[in-house]
Amino acid sequence: MNQSFHILNGKDFKSIGKAMLQGWFGLEKENVRVNAKGEMARTSHPWVFGNKNTHPYFTTDFSESQLEMITPPQESISEACDFLKVLNDLFYENVEGEYLWPQSMPPVLPSSDEIPIAQYGEEGRDKEAYRNYLGRVYGRPMQMISGMHFNFSLSESLLRRLFAAQSGMASLEEFKEQLYLRIVRNFLRDRWFLLLNSGASSSAHESFEGCCLKESCAADNGVYSCPEALSMRSSPFGYTNREHMVMDYSSFQAYDASVQRLIEEDFVSLEKEIYLPIRLKFVEKDGKRIFSHLEVRILDLNPFSSAGVSKDMLYFTHLFLLYGMMKEEYESFGPEQQLQASENQYQASVKGMNPALELTDSSGKKQAAGSLAEALLKDMEKKVSFLFEDNLCYREAFEKSKEQALNPEKRAAYRVRQEILAKGYVEFHMEQARKARQLSLEQAFRFHGKEDMELSTQLLMKEAVLRGIRIDIMDREENFLRLLRGKREEYVVQATKTSLDTYSGVLKMENKIVTKDILEQAGISVPAGESYSDAGSAKADFPLHEGKAVVIKPKSTNFGLGITILKENCDRDVYERAVEIAFQHDRSILVEEFVEGKEHRIFVVGDQVVGILRRVPANVQGDGRRTIRELVEEKNQDPLRGKGYRTPLERISLGEAEQIFLSGQGFCFETVPEKGKVVYLRENSNISTGGDSIDCTDDVSQSYKDLAVKAARAMGVKITGLDMIIKDIRQQAAPGNYSVIEMNFNPAIHIHCYPYVGKNRRLNASILDALGFPAAKMKEQQT
Amino acid sequence: MNQSFHILNGKDFKSIGKAMLQGWFGLEKENVRVNAKGEMARTSHPWVFGNKNTHPYFTTDFSESQLEMITPPQESISEACDFLKVLNDLFYENVEGEYLWPQSMPPVLPSSDEIPIAQYGEEGRDKEAYRNYLGRVYGRPMQMISGMHFNFSLSESLLRRLFAAQSGMASLEEFKEQLYLRIVRNFLRDRWFLLLNSGASSSAHESFEGCCLKESCAADNGVYSCPEALSMRSSPFGYTNREHMVMDYSSFQAYDASVQRLIEEDFVSLEKEIYLPIRLKFVEKDGKRIFSHLEVRILDLNPFSSAGVSKDMLYFTHLFLLYGMMKEEYESFGPEQQLQASENQYQASVKGMNPALELTDSSGKKQAAGSLAEALLKDMEKKVSFLFEDNLCYREAFEKSKEQALNPEKRAAYRVRQEILAKGYVEFHMEQARKARQLSLEQAFRFHGKEDMELSTQLLMKEAVLRGIRIDIMDREENFLRLLRGKREEYVVQATKTSLDTYSGVLKMENKIVTKDILEQAGISVPAGESYSDAGSAKADFPLHEGKAVVIKPKSTNFGLGITILKENCDRDVYERAVEIAFQHDRSILVEEFVEGKEHRIFVVGDQVVGILRRVPANVQGDGRRTIRELVEEKNQDPLRGKGYRTPLERISLGEAEQIFLSGQGFCFETVPEKGKVVYLRENSNISTGGDSIDCTDDVSQSYKDLAVKAARAMGVKITGLDMIIKDIRQQAAPGNYSVIEMNFNPAIHIHCYPYVGKNRRLNASILDALGFPAAKMKEQQT
Repeated sequence: MNQSFHILNGKDFKSIGKAMLQGWFGLEKENVRVNAKGEMARTSHPWVFGNKNTHPYFTTDFSESQLEMITPPQESISEACDFLKVLNDLFYENVEGEYLWPQSMPPVLPSSDEIPIAQYGEEGRDKEAYRNYLGRVYGRPMQMISGMHFNFSLSESLLRRLFAAQSGMASLEEFKEQLYLRIVRNFLRDRWFLLLNSGASSSAHESFEGCCLKESCAADNGVYSCPEALSMRSSPFGYTNREHMVMDYSSFQAYDASVQRLIEEDFVSLEKEIYLPIRLKFVEKDGKRIFSHLEVRILDLNPFSSAGVSKDMLYFTHLFLLYGMMKEEYESFGPEQQLQASENQYQASVKGMNPALELTDSSGKKQAAGSLAEALLKDMEKKVSFLFEDNLCYREAFEKSKEQALNPEKRAAYRVRQEILAKGYVEFHMEQARKARQLSLEQAFRFHGKEDMELSTQLLMKEAVLRGIRIDIMDREENFLRLLRGKREEYVVQATKTSLDTYSGVLKMENKIVTKDILEQAGISVPAGESYSDAGSAKADFPLHEGKAVVIKPKSTNFGLGITILKENCDRDVYERAVEIAFQHDRSILVEEFVEGKEHRIFVVGDQVVGILRRVPANVQGDGRRTIRELVEEKNQDPLRGKGYRTPLERISLGEAEQIFLSGQGFCFETVPEKGKVVYLRENSNISTGGDSIDCTDDVSQSYKDLAVKAARAMGVKITGLDMIIKDIRQQAAPGNYSVIEMNFNPAIHIHCYPYVGKNRRLNASILDALGFPAAKMKEQQT
Repeated sequence: MNQSFHILNGKDFKSIGKAMLQGWFGLEKENVRVNAKGEMARTSHPWVFGNKNTHPYFTTDFSESQLEMITPPQESISEACDFLKVLNDLFYENVEGEYLWPQSMPPVLPSSDEIPIAQYGEEGRDKEAYRNYLGRVYGRPMQMISGMHFNFSLSESLLRRLFAAQSGMASLEEFKEQLYLRIVRNFLRDRWFLLLNSGASSSAHESFEGCCLKESCAADNGVYSCPEALSMRSSPFGYTNREHMVMDYSSFQAYDASVQRLIEEDFVSLEKEIYLPIRLKFVEKDGKRIFSHLEVRILDLNPFSSAGVSKDMLYFTHLFLLYGMMKEEYESFGPEQQLQASENQYQASVKGMNPALELTDSSGKKQAAGSLAEALLKDMEKKVSFLFEDNLCYREAFEKSKEQALNPEKRAAYRVRQEILAKGYVEFHMEQARKARQLSLEQAFRFHGKEDMELSTQLLMKEAVLRGIRIDIMDREENFLRLLRGKREEYVVQATKTSLDTYSGVLKMENKIVTKDILEQAGISVPAGESYSDAGSAKADFPLHEGKAVVIKPKSTNFGLGITILKENCDRDVYERAVEIAFQHDRSILVEEFVEGKEHRIFVVGDQVVGILRRVPANVQGDGRRTIRELVEEKNQDPLRGKGYRTPLERISLGEAEQIFLSGQGFCFETVPEKGKVVYLRENSNISTGGDSIDCTDDVSQSYKDLAVKAARAMGVKITGLDMIIKDIRQQAAPGNYSVIEMNFNPAIHIHCYPYVGKNRRLNASILDALGFPAAKMKEQQT
């Protein structure tokens, strides 16, 4: 065998340490769309996902009813899996009345000729023709078998480190080629093992026409269910070529040659028709075929995981690939060995649950599958366990997979079959689909795996994914994104810092004095007041402000820091102290009249008001029965409420501040408020202390919206969160009944999307519209 | 008399305190342009000042050769005077071979019909016609007499305070009217006194044709010089109407009526032909005539002050106006009193230096001018001295004026006459003009009165003034400007934060990781390296960086803080310490290869490189004679070098750091370097530690300029200061011989305008061009 097998030994890999886990990870998942009865949906690909020829995340597989979701490469398995969850979430948020069938084997299918081939329009005539050909050759029902593909490549820096740790090869390119080929060969040799854990398709609905499993098991209660099988999908009766495909895995060039031979000899029509359990993937670059990544195709959909696959399964698969890289090769991998490996796969897929199953070992001898599995696990653990030290999730995934491999009743295939037997094929899978849908809708405000980023950014990214926009996270801590679609490229920071606003526009908003000047000149009411750049002058002007209601605040800070409100400015000492506090936060301060009314956040994008919110201090409404403590506990159950700004609303605390505020009203936590009475637990209305956000976009008089847009125009800004005090939102705006307090250049969008009361104003959509990334448009319904 | 005279008494004014000095102050100055011989220039109004019909700062008065400079209203006298200095500076910086004649009486004039009337083109036909009329009525030479106008109004908040301190009047408007009218009446009564200090035109050149002073004094040595006179300009032979103008000063309406009467009765053709020593100025607003400000017109040009007037004279004039507000009125101010007041003015202007001069007092009695002056000073001091407490400049101005008033030989008129007698009329004034020119050119890098603002902003404002752009300082501490011309409005912060750049563009530049990503993708060389967001990973990667030349730096800071350069990264402890230091300045850091070469700052505006600088550490060049200390002292004489960033270059220190660095080379401050040898006093090249800025815009290969523009385009930014390491600026750019280190979003412009070596690259002009405020264009020379 090739010398490269021996240039890296166990010690070399260990020297790389945890960097061995660095890589790029992607997932592709197919699901047949179904109606609530578990019947294949006959609707077109959802229009909301736009053009299936170009959308990077949502397209169709063989059938118009077979949704394919694709994650971009991610830096961790966890993120890839989470990205897939986001795609699931987007399906359920945007498609009414349909479900994703969570099983590789199809749902209730119509007759073969009623299975619709995916329609690609003018630009996708080839794709349709290819699918028609597939339908003819393999039968449409077989093409409805769905699965999970796991894309994987090593990180460039890991490759460089590995290359540096060896000395046998002079070229990084050649080294890389041999490394990946070794992974592929070892993967193919041992792939039967993966089925023990990933196999989850031992049953099929009776409508799965032409199912060859009829031969091995009879339909019972509308389902073909094989007690010994792990994966019908990976069996000879599943999603496989009709012939055995022999390839040359000694070099990329030799591999290509074998692909060409299969096509020339009419075994297949295209490379992608070669249904191997792992594929070498290449991209064209400057006319050359460059290796891109490996595609693992053997994983069944797992109905128990809302994402279709568990993270544990993916961690284990990753370890399995790395094991393939580290494992010595003592034999070649020619046609005979390849046939034997396929045979092992078929045996395991059809009879993997049979404890007496025998497989062929590397020396060609029959051995009990159980002892082969034990030996493999032992060798694998020896080689990969150095990676467990700082990576508990990999250790746990390994332990779990080991347990499942060695205990058949813990395997997914077994558990799925038990559920089907208990609940029925359709009902069990639909129950899982309904659970997945419920989970998606409850978590709609998050972008799974990016929870460390701001909620506003998470929501913007979700909408970007829906619209088929590629997202590059340029700087994660700073919520710095690049959005790309077609020729359009935009950079967005913290969801609202964009190219729509000019730098000077932002600096105008940041400076309260400048903002006031400009608004005043534009004829918009702002609080009357004076600015001061030294405490002495501010203090000396006490007589000017005496007896009035005033706000004393720093010139440029946000978040309300350093602001004092004096409802009646009578005590010189108090006034002077407030001046000092404000000066602790800025070099200049404002002393302004205090304007009576309620503060509203008016969100403007371009020339439009896209949302208006009012914030209300933490509160509960009595029912005449429960205590304040119980009412708070109930209110805190809302999934929108969490801790630490990871949710659109925060839980109400029952702390000292709340206790004091209640006792001021003669209440305590055990008070039972009368029915309908609203009890406030705080004075301040911040969302961060349990306040409620009340959407009132539709309730505010148009005149205030016009003023907000006028203000944005006067300032020359496109995105702004304008804070306006309004005496009565139903009254027509007039000088004296409103006042603009400030204009924020980085306003949060999530509070308008998931308010406590009111509907989702979809500000993430508004911002993408403004940035020139329009949403998909509904077309004439296709059938 | 009107009751309003008594509604405010001394105590009321004192209660206002130093706020009494709040107001708006503006200056208008006329100068005849002359050639080096002191002859009236026969050139057109300088084209660089654009359209004289619309330029807010530079226009012409009567004659094409008579430049008029106008300051906008300023918040202090000091700033108004300084703004005027800026206008002078701009004249000398932009007009070659001409001077501003620093005397109210004209320079060497040609014959009357050769004095060119100002040309205003099609749009200014009326103005030319009016000037032709003036030339006919008063003679062109008389119209060449030039002066200084001082515009003044009380601040709105002072007016409100004064209004609040009285109770006699219910309407603020009426109160304001009576207050200003009292100032005017008292000013007119006492105006003769101002001539004692401001009079500076007791002589005229013999070419001043038709000079009526011929009657009172004969020409001697080419000059009419009247020993007793203070101001020919304010005399009956000067810039005055031929008839006495009687007005009604009891109300604005009455005043307007008297203006109309004078026009109807053909005494004058327009209101502005009424040459009163103080004018009430109004503006039209919504069809109404609204009072705007007072215009004091009695001040002569002072040849000793480069701005044409001393600040002391202006402070005193301000006090004099406030005195007019505070002074009780016991008599009315009818036609007889007005005639008497004019007579006193004429007497003082022609005979003010005669110790025996008598004037008419308020009761109509003749009194010695000296004792009237003493009485006035005593009363004035009593009334205004409460303002001196925190305002030393007002106290000093008062004391100085008092001394001049009481000691004739200290007056400007006397001193000017002495100089003329000693040096000749033309030579003395030209000497002053040359001094003013010299001063202007030396200080070209500053905007007088705005020295607290950044040099870059000062330079931008100067260019804006030259181009006739109105400047509103929105926030002085932040160098926040609004620029206005015609319909164009732009906001600029710190000279380079503008609307040209988008917010996301700026955020890209601010983030070094993002910048590198984008440049790399665009095929531009950047230092290879890794970014880290935790110190642990950065430290663990020591082997990756070991033995190489590396730079360890925080991700987002400017100013070089937290950056360590390790020319050979061999010591793990040193490396780890450098990582820690970088993390003290940011949450993420970069470890990059150190690129050999010299760092160049390439300034890009739009698609153009507008300046390239190299910085060199503080150094001196030996002459084989002087010590390092002496060479430093000489180098520090350069007016471009100062302390504390108020000048384009900083002085070289002779401190400990320099001493240590020299001793490393075996030198001390007393070493005498050989001729031509360059001795460096610091390792770092910062301008702030005495480094030199070397302009090399014309020396750098076009290929690097193309790269800089390409980088700006890739980043989508318009204004950037790109730092590029270049091995050899004459070599063609190629990967490996350059590297882009960072792109600054707020680069200084002054260092490119006033480099140590090289020419002014006028980046202030480039930025205004880019902002859509083009400069005036040279027209076909007019004659």
